[in-house]
Amino acid sequence: VAGYTLGQIREILGGELRGNGAVILRSVASLSSAGPDQLSFLLDGKHLPALQRSGAGAVILPASLADSVPLPRIVADNPHAYFARAAALLHAPAPIEPGIHPTAVVHPDALIDPTSCIGPLTFVARGAYVGSGSIIGAGVSLGENAVVGSDCHLYDRVVIYHGCGLGDRCIVHSGAVIGADGFGYAKDGEAWLKVPQLGRVLIGDDVEIGACTTIDRGALDDTVIENGVKLDNLIMVAHNVRVGAHTAIAACVGIAGSTRIGSRCTIGGAAMIVGHIEIADGVHIGGGTLVAKSVIQPGAYTGVMPMEEHKNWLRNAAHLRHLDDMARRIRELERRLGRKEED
Amino acid sequence: VAGYTLGQIREILGGELRGNGAVILRSVASLSSAGPDQLSFLLDGKHLPALQRSGAGAVILPASLADSVPLPRIVADNPHAYFARAAALLHAPAPIEPGIHPTAVVHPDALIDPTSCIGPLTFVARGAYVGSGSIIGAGVSLGENAVVGSDCHLYDRVVIYHGCGLGDRCIVHSGAVIGADGFGYAKDGEAWLKVPQLGRVLIGDDVEIGACTTIDRGALDDTVIENGVKLDNLIMVAHNVRVGAHTAIAACVGIAGSTRIGSRCTIGGAAMIVGHIEIADGVHIGGGTLVAKSVIQPGAYTGVMPMEEHKNWLRNAAHLRHLDDMARRIRELERRLGRKEED
Amino acid sequence: VAGYTLGQIREILGGELRGNGAVILRSVASLSSAGPDQLSFLLDGKHLPALQRSGAGAVILPASLADSVPLPRIVADNPHAYFARAAALLHAPAPIEPGIHPTAVVHPDALIDPTSCIGPLTFVARGAYVGSGSIIGAGVSLGENAVVGSDCHLYDRVVIYHGCGLGDRCIVHSGAVIGADGFGYAKDGEAWLKVPQLGRVLIGDDVEIGACTTIDRGALDDTVIENGVKLDNLIMVAHNVRVGAHTAIAACVGIAGSTRIGSRCTIGGAAMIVGHIEIADGVHIGGGTLVAKSVIQPGAYTGVMPMEEHKNWLRNAAHLRHLDDMARRIRELERRLGRKEED
Repeated sequence: VAGYTLGQIREILGGELRGNGAVILRSVASLSSAGPDQLSFLLDGKHLPALQRSGAGAVILPASLADSVPLPRIVADNPHAYFARAAALLHAPAPIEPGIHPTAVVHPDALIDPTSCIGPLTFVARGAYVGSGSIIGAGVSLGENAVVGSDCHLYDRVVIYHGCGLGDRCIVHSGAVIGADGFGYAKDGEAWLKVPQLGRVLIGDDVEIGACTTIDRGALDDTVIENGVKLDNLIMVAHNVRVGAHTAIAACVGIAGSTRIGSRCTIGGAAMIVGHIEIADGVHIGGGTLVAKSVIQPGAYTGVMPMEEHKNWLRNAAHLRHLDDMARRIRELERRLGRKEED
Repeated sequence: VAGYTLGQIREILGGELRGNGAVILRSVASLSSAGPDQLSFLLDGKHLPALQRSGAGAVILPASLADSVPLPRIVADNPHAYFARAAALLHAPAPIEPGIHPTAVVHPDALIDPTSCIGPLTFVARGAYVGSGSIIGAGVSLGENAVVGSDCHLYDRVVIYHGCGLGDRCIVHSGAVIGADGFGYAKDGEAWLKVPQLGRVLIGDDVEIGACTTIDRGALDDTVIENGVKLDNLIMVAHNVRVGAHTAIAACVGIAGSTRIGSRCTIGGAAMIVGHIEIADGVHIGGGTLVAKSVIQPGAYTGVMPMEEHKNWLRNAAHLRHLDDMARRIRELERRLGRKEED
Repeated sequence: VAGYTLGQIREILGGELRGNGAVILRSVASLSSAGPDQLSFLLDGKHLPALQRSGAGAVILPASLADSVPLPRIVADNPHAYFARAAALLHAPAPIEPGIHPTAVVHPDALIDPTSCIGPLTFVARGAYVGSGSIIGAGVSLGENAVVGSDCHLYDRVVIYHGCGLGDRCIVHSGAVIGADGFGYAKDGEAWLKVPQLGRVLIGDDVEIGACTTIDRGALDDTVIENGVKLDNLIMVAHNVRVGAHTAIAACVGIAGSTRIGSRCTIGGAAMIVGHIEIADGVHIGGGTLVAKSVIQPGAYTGVMPMEEHKNWLRNAAHLRHLDDMARRIRELERRLGRKEED
């Protein structure tokens, strides 16, 4: 790898260079493992000792630590974002080899931009569309009339059902399933009668979807994921949900049907959000929290039972079934004591 | 699409026609988006304003709202089930094109009914069987001696392990895995020794299984899913579980080994059910609830920590570790106050 | 199946034979379903009635029950492990048919040991390696430079991303995804900027990974799963996590980024472990528990809200938002009563 000098990186990405700009950097690494041709970073003073021991060739750091080490360095307003861009520069993916692998099965009425690539053993159904510069991995399945925009990357074994669409620059990881039927049934005597799921999943630009995450198609209207949303692995997004722009959702979260989540929210891992509610913009839900009703105000919300040693938990948890009784007894004590005090 | 007149729909599906039966309907839609050739529905008075503003060509409604609008309409005892049937009528899937795609790999000793279709890049192992009128999508894997009944639909990239079986009219969504090994180990010094998982998964008729749901094979006996069960996405059914007929389970639920769940239960999203317990018929478990012991009585059960603003939660949750102490102090206050009152 | 006599089993696996060693056993079964050519087992006296009614040809049992039945039997120090070994003996898998299926797509620069088999419709990318005696199922995807050791079994539709590696004797079930990008973003104004995920997933020997479990690659350094770890289905292991040797994790667990879990731990189903913490060796976390900070001491830990009838839960849960107030009122009562007692 040819690499870049620190001065070249500064020319491309900005920031303020201090020290030797001629040092050549070929890759990025953590402070503790970086060598003389590697670029590292730190966000704040917490890792200052690691910085001082680091063998990195250069570092990205915030203004507050600008002169804390003699290493060649770039002072950046947002060192984390700067490092992300520098890492993308030093670890640029190999250029795409456009074309359709001979073992892929592409319906003659599908439209694949010639600058995109379709991997081995992938199936593209009638009417599907793939825009320019997209990478479709091995064993992917694109259903009828599915749409993948430009500069997307679908990793191996992703499934996009019929009629569902992704915008530009989306990344979808292996095992993700976009557009399976929503969980919709009418009670019919003792049995459940399937309600046909006729909507689609529509996904905006710059969305990333983690491994084995599932987003169900709408019942009548569509399920919508807005621009810039980031979904981690093993997330369930039910039918007719809408997730607002730039919301980030950690792994193992479930969102039940028809719920609307605002923009710029964060949802912690394994949180569960019930159906038919609204969550405002800028809401932050703690990991493991069950959200049972709408959240109107931005802010941070939590609802988890704290962990303790099992034997202490047993002793304390027994009282949870008697809180109502405890509250009544406190009121009664207050009444009796008040009467006594009046004596 | 040719469509049906409202009168024709009534002839096929029953109900009571009011207004113009000659209106032609080509598809279904929600009240707010429906146009003049679309059929919509409502279940109760809550959506009456939307009904009154609706541009639908016709609606399905309950007797209590029979004359609330002048629109052509059908009065049905169970408007939700009626609408499900009407939607299935108006949105009938294209007829199957029977046959085995040339890129599918089907073992010569597998038996595929000639009225079924096997999608591209699908693998069918020795001894597997597919009944009449079933659709097996792209990239599916049917293990040795796996059985799929009649009129089933397995979407792309479903995996059925060796020896597992599905009844008739089952639907399985992409990414579902039926028949992986149960999580069974014997402690052997510091290490875990695998216990061979020799049972199967047996699935009844009219079962629907969501995307990326996993149902493990039994250790010695079989894991059983009875008729009419509906499983949403990302559910874990462990080895030797039995789920009773017409039970519906929402997404992200885990059911640990050897547990038996009754018939006509509903399990809310992200509930977790421990192993080796029994849940009676007609039990309803709330979302996010951990079920730690058998449930003998039908009814509704819940166990979740309510969500609140994070700063309030911090203040309140701190006391959960001291409930035993609080209870003791209340008893002590009662004793002391009682003594004082006797003075 | 030829089977083994009980005497032959004792010769191979040890233990103490009592009764007729000439009985021929062809398979294993549970006590209640076993017939005269089947071997069964029990661990303790709890199943003694089932043992006494059993039609098994022979049983494995502990010393404490050595003479509780006249059946041919082997007395073993660890009957569960003994039974696991006997089941593996009686149910030995068919020998591998080595070779690459003609429909598999294997890059010419991949290295496949000739004693291994590669299933139909599987894709092996450039530089990937498969050791001796391994079974790679149908529709698997092995990324560039992925490594699979010897005597591994990857079931159908497993995905291993580029650069990730498995040791020897590993089992990976269908739908598992090893090496997808970690959930790493830098905040960049309103949007999230992807931080390239440049580490790998490194998996030791004798690891089993369940269906649809996802293990993300590290951001800079690697995600590590040590020897003998057992992961059930639908588990999320985030980037840069380390799981210590012989730790067993039940289904639906999430482990957030950079957390280190010790050796010989057990984690119950649907537990959620936050990021950047350490869990000591020999820690046992209860199902459904959220682990929010490091656990220094071995032992058992729990944090779940007990389930009760929904109407009782409603009544009790209302007080959880007022625990701080209840605690204050108890203190106040103690103060007032103390003053009164001093009168």
